[in-house]
Amino acid sequence: MANPDKTNRFQQVDDKALDEARALLANARHAALATLNPETGAPQATRVGLTLAEDSTPLIFVSMLAGHTPALLADPRCSLLVGEPGKGDPLARPRIMLDCEAEKLARDDAAFAPALKAYLAAHPKAELYAALPDFLFFRLQPKSVLYNAGFGRAYRMTGTELLG
Amino acid sequence: MANPDKTNRFQQVDDKALDEARALLANARHAALATLNPETGAPQATRVGLTLAEDSTPLIFVSMLAGHTPALLADPRCSLLVGEPGKGDPLARPRIMLDCEAEKLARDDAAFAPALKAYLAAHPKAELYAALPDFLFFRLQPKSVLYNAGFGRAYRMTGTELLG
Repeated sequence: MANPDKTNRFQQVDDKALDEARALLANARHAALATLNPETGAPQATRVGLTLAEDSTPLIFVSMLAGHTPALLADPRCSLLVGEPGKGDPLARPRIMLDCEAEKLARDDAAFAPALKAYLAAHPKAELYAALPDFLFFRLQPKSVLYNAGFGRAYRMTGTELLG
Repeated sequence: MANPDKTNRFQQVDDKALDEARALLANARHAALATLNPETGAPQATRVGLTLAEDSTPLIFVSMLAGHTPALLADPRCSLLVGEPGKGDPLARPRIMLDCEAEKLARDDAAFAPALKAYLAAHPKAELYAALPDFLFFRLQPKSVLYNAGFGRAYRMTGTELLG
C-alpha cells in the first residue's frame, strides 16, 4: 500500500471484477457527479439521480437550475461516483468512478422516449417534472473507469470493457 | 421550478438552515470529492473519509495512490458533496456542497496531531495506515456553500457563515 509505483496499483481485470462493477452500476439510483464550474473552471460535486439505458450507458435527467446542467453544456467532461458507503470504513466499501463525456439527448431525438421511460421506471417521482422544458437528459459515455472494490483491489477498465 | 431567474433560486439563510447544514456536515463520515485531474484538467469524483476539525473545518486524510491527492497538490480547488441519499427520491434528500480550497497539513505542523486525533476518533481503522508517509492530511477551507434541503429549499452561504 505504501508503494507509490503506479504500475503496481491495479489488478488485472477479470470476469469477477467486471461482474461486480456492472452490478454496482446497475443497482445505483443516484451518484455524485463532478463537473467544471463554467465561470471559474473549478471542480464542483453535485448529486444526480441515475439510471442506465438499455445498453447500460448511464443516464441523468437534470434541471437547468442545478449547477451541473449549465456546466455539462459548457464542457461535457464529467465524472460519476457510484456506490453506497454504508457503515464501517467508507474506503473499504466498493465504488466505481467513471470518467465520462456527456451527450445531451434532445426531446426530439429517437433515444429520448426510451431514456425517459427507463428513468421514470427508476424514479417514478420524476414524472412531476418530466415535462418541464428546463429538465435536460444526458447520456454519460464512460471513457475511463476505476472500480475500487476496497483496499488492495482496484481495477482500471475502459468504458467499452465495462459496458461489454 | 421552471423559472430560470437565478435571483429567485435561493432562500434567505436563517438559523434553521444554518443549524441543519451544520448538523449534516457534523454527522458526515465520508463525502464525494471533486478535483481536477492534473494531467487532463477534467473533473474527477472520488470518495473520501471525512471528519471535522475543532473549528468545524472539514479534514480529509488521503493516500498518494488515490487520484484526488496528486490532484489537490497540483490545484487546491475542490468541492465536497455531503449527505446520504437513503431511500426514495435522491434529490428530495438534504445535501450540502462545499466549494473548498485544500490546505495540506504537514506532519510537523502544530495542527497535524489534533487533526489526526479527530480523524482517528471518527475512523478508528485509519490507524492501520496513519503512519504511512504517502498519506496526507488536508484541511478543506469552504469558500462557497450550497445547502440543498430538498426541492424548493436551497440556500447559498459563505464558508464563514457555515462554520460560524
